[in-house]
Amino acid sequence: MNRDSAVSWDRSRTGTVKDVTRNKDLVAAFADRLERRDWPAFGELLDPDVVYEIPQTRERIEGRDRYVTFNAEYPGDWHIEPQVVLGDEHHGSLLFRWTLGGDTSLAIAFFEFHEGKITKITDFWPESYEPPPGREHLVERW
Amino acid sequence: MNRDSAVSWDRSRTGTVKDVTRNKDLVAAFADRLERRDWPAFGELLDPDVVYEIPQTRERIEGRDRYVTFNAEYPGDWHIEPQVVLGDEHHGSLLFRWTLGGDTSLAIAFFEFHEGKITKITDFWPESYEPPPGREHLVERW
Repeated sequence: MNRDSAVSWDRSRTGTVKDVTRNKDLVAAFADRLERRDWPAFGELLDPDVVYEIPQTRERIEGRDRYVTFNAEYPGDWHIEPQVVLGDEHHGSLLFRWTLGGDTSLAIAFFEFHEGKITKITDFWPESYEPPPGREHLVERW
Repeated sequence: MNRDSAVSWDRSRTGTVKDVTRNKDLVAAFADRLERRDWPAFGELLDPDVVYEIPQTRERIEGRDRYVTFNAEYPGDWHIEPQVVLGDEHHGSLLFRWTLGGDTSLAIAFFEFHEGKITKITDFWPESYEPPPGREHLVERW
């Protein structure tokens, strides 16, 4: 009996409330275990065939082992501080503050889940830019 | 009696399930009415004191009228196609494909809600960039 996949894909069942809670918890645990560099516990959140993508660079990493290695090898004393954690039956989202050395910025990850594991991570690293002209009459800047 | 704010801020009440559905619907309606340029209907989703921010440019727009005007004046034949819509009692998230002329990219908005209206929008416009060296042994590119 595969209870997990049944509740994941049938929104009419009451089990979806548990599923939403569980997937949101997965997103929170992802941020927490990454920040703590607890690689065995981090790996437990991931499907063996997890796919990680950065659309901005068109980079893709396939498989849990390679993706854990990518994070473990990521250089510098970086830190992750969650700002918003969201999850439903199928998708999750994380807005986080990323700090490395003296630099800090906001970054975003979206997630997909299957049977209590993360199967897909799509990561975004927005950079600062100057606004186009023409909207100064509506906008203030900080 | 202010039923809406009570269910928004008390997670122990069963009303939160309705609240989650409503806030997720707000995010979906935001994308739909923006795409259709239905400015009166778009404005109905927004709190009069809504705040819109772009952290990458440090731009802020305060108030429903100015924010509707900002969108109505945004130049070009742009289109929005939602990819992921998420919402809970307090926050929402939208991953969308943005198309303008021959260019297409993914962009993200996060939302805050109060009493069935959108009170805050935080928008991200990630641009393409070249990946740093040192991770070629883990990554493929598309």
